[in-house]
Amino acid sequence: MIAVLPQLKINQDRLEHSIAELAEIGKLPNGGVCRPAFSDKDVQARQLVKTWMQEAGMSVRSDAVGNIIGTYAGTKTETAALATGSHIDTVPVGGRFDGCLGVLAGIEVARVLQETQTRLRHPFEVIVFSDEENSVLGCKAIAGNAPTDPERYRRKEGTSIQECLQNVGGDWENLHTAKRDRSEIAAFIELHVEQGGVLEANNKQIGVVTGIVGQYRYMVQIVGRPNHAGTTPMNMRKDALVAASQLVLAINRLGVETIGDQVATVGHLIVSPNGTNVVPSLVNLSIDLRDLSEENLQYLITEIEKEAAAIAVNTGTEISFDQKLHVLPTLAKPELMATITDVCKNLNLSYEYLPSRAGHDAQEMGRFTDMAMIFVPSLNGISHSEEEYTSPEQCAQGAEVLLQTILAIDKNY
Amino acid sequence: MIAVLPQLKINQDRLEHSIAELAEIGKLPNGGVCRPAFSDKDVQARQLVKTWMQEAGMSVRSDAVGNIIGTYAGTKTETAALATGSHIDTVPVGGRFDGCLGVLAGIEVARVLQETQTRLRHPFEVIVFSDEENSVLGCKAIAGNAPTDPERYRRKEGTSIQECLQNVGGDWENLHTAKRDRSEIAAFIELHVEQGGVLEANNKQIGVVTGIVGQYRYMVQIVGRPNHAGTTPMNMRKDALVAASQLVLAINRLGVETIGDQVATVGHLIVSPNGTNVVPSLVNLSIDLRDLSEENLQYLITEIEKEAAAIAVNTGTEISFDQKLHVLPTLAKPELMATITDVCKNLNLSYEYLPSRAGHDAQEMGRFTDMAMIFVPSLNGISHSEEEYTSPEQCAQGAEVLLQTILAIDKNY
Repeated sequence: MIAVLPQLKINQDRLEHSIAELAEIGKLPNGGVCRPAFSDKDVQARQLVKTWMQEAGMSVRSDAVGNIIGTYAGTKTETAALATGSHIDTVPVGGRFDGCLGVLAGIEVARVLQETQTRLRHPFEVIVFSDEENSVLGCKAIAGNAPTDPERYRRKEGTSIQECLQNVGGDWENLHTAKRDRSEIAAFIELHVEQGGVLEANNKQIGVVTGIVGQYRYMVQIVGRPNHAGTTPMNMRKDALVAASQLVLAINRLGVETIGDQVATVGHLIVSPNGTNVVPSLVNLSIDLRDLSEENLQYLITEIEKEAAAIAVNTGTEISFDQKLHVLPTLAKPELMATITDVCKNLNLSYEYLPSRAGHDAQEMGRFTDMAMIFVPSLNGISHSEEEYTSPEQCAQGAEVLLQTILAIDKNY
Repeated sequence: MIAVLPQLKINQDRLEHSIAELAEIGKLPNGGVCRPAFSDKDVQARQLVKTWMQEAGMSVRSDAVGNIIGTYAGTKTETAALATGSHIDTVPVGGRFDGCLGVLAGIEVARVLQETQTRLRHPFEVIVFSDEENSVLGCKAIAGNAPTDPERYRRKEGTSIQECLQNVGGDWENLHTAKRDRSEIAAFIELHVEQGGVLEANNKQIGVVTGIVGQYRYMVQIVGRPNHAGTTPMNMRKDALVAASQLVLAINRLGVETIGDQVATVGHLIVSPNGTNVVPSLVNLSIDLRDLSEENLQYLITEIEKEAAAIAVNTGTEISFDQKLHVLPTLAKPELMATITDVCKNLNLSYEYLPSRAGHDAQEMGRFTDMAMIFVPSLNGISHSEEEYTSPEQCAQGAEVLLQTILAIDKNY
């Protein structure tokens, strides 16, 4: 059990004001934010964050992909940094907490260190990662995993990634220079809103993230036979939608009944020719599988393919799978989880272990260094929406856990 | 058992040539026909058919909705007519047999009567019904069941029904004058291609239609809750697509397992928001139910609504039904079915009883007079397609059954 340093404490009002001020940039009518990566609003927000970092006593630089790295110097300059951070870009209609809380809580930690004239042993870094909501380029470049085809990053409206990076002081040609390693960052801890309803449903203040799930995504094609819905008797049909419905339920059943924390979703389904009086001849549907355990994900895929093969035989359809995405899970470092747990206990905050089923910058950071995440509740589990909300008190509780965790691991790392 | 008059026989070549010649009007590249009702091609085809009727010794008139009525006079002029017929309009990409076979076989019957100088007791009518493929206006007007709102009949490209009827010598304002009753038409027998695959699958030459099914159509709305497919655990979801899949399978199971000849189809299904990473919050789907038994249809609807209520509870969704269509079934007259059966036996043609699950002009005619239908096989069950095909021999067999049935009932009616 570690001791909390009672003199160091997050300033809830200051954090709340920073969140509100940042949310003015790209503000939407109902309290949300529109601030896509590399947009003018993003550039404006980056400038504000850099200023705040400097005011908190940090040296600030940005790398080839526009990641902003603020460093609060430690006493042992040669030591690898302890890092936190997240992102300030948003989806087109986003909330003010997703990403921003992690960045601004990191800056708030630096402010507390500065105002108490505290120096850690390690350098303390706050990183603002580029383009989390779209390509995840920022953290992937730091992890050395960013695909190098520039066309993958072209904006929907047509802007090239080269131009995007110029807007934020980056340089596509030097992408590789953004890569960092364990000798530079000893641990990365990200604070984020949950974006789901687990903490709220279980009435917990803090989520101790066990890892960020891996993901498989498939597109499935089911080919039946188009027939007149009037003239074709039931036993002469090859109904692609009946087959699809069986598959949807098999996937749901495996998601619900398999031992584990997996989620399995068919979110997208298109019927052809989709006429009220035509037996469906074609269904295309998506499968999205997420779990912390790659082994369990592979088991689920095997089972789903077995079910699909049986359904194809029973319905006279042809079912084929096309893999679209495979992201490996990243597990949180158990020692870091234990420290966060101890901090929660010392602060008398209720907590719960849970996986993150959404992707985060920490997922890539965890590929080369020790990673952990701290979640705070999202009202009604809502995110990527103007209705996204986490109270000032909840934000401050998350930041407090971040601060005390950094202080604690500064001794051990 | 009735005796076939061996001297009266369909001329297979003549019928085949008529089918081919009519198919030249609106001919498509791969053997199909594009001849929408009231189009220039329809007008041209009507003129050809009228000429053929006249050449076969029929007097020809047309009514207020453009139905063409050819009459081959009988010996007892005051007697109600024995009628046959069908339509010569097509869907935009149609075949050459759907509808046309019934009209041209009727004219072929008149030709045989004329060339053998045979007079029936009854007047013999061949009716070409207007707009079967779209509004079914022609037969509905004769049955006195045509809706009188002209907007219901406006063509997709904007032409009014008034203008359409002018093109074919009709007169919208006198719609009501097209109505006829049992004192004018004692029986109506329609020959048609099956448009399904039952006869072919069972290797039968003639289908003795037991009736034309009734139809219920509903739109169903299933409201769940939109959630992130990553962050929402399986047990916290209200997945509208899981509910929809259960309903699709329940409808299919009722269609397959209920004792009866019903078909039950979900042909149309739309998922919202339809994103791969969003738990579906809304599904709209269609239900199409058809059966000869109105009682069975009502049973099916009751069972489907019960299933839906249970599914709503189990999945946490709200499911609502909106009735879009209700067509009452029309049963074939048993005495006419028996006569057709006897004719098949005498002609050594294999036959099978089956319902018509597609709508036909005979459905409306059966609402005010005795009705029967004769089916001949459709290759691969295909219709409303350029691939629609029934061989010259099969067409002639159907026409032969029509001829002999008319001769037989001329004695009884």
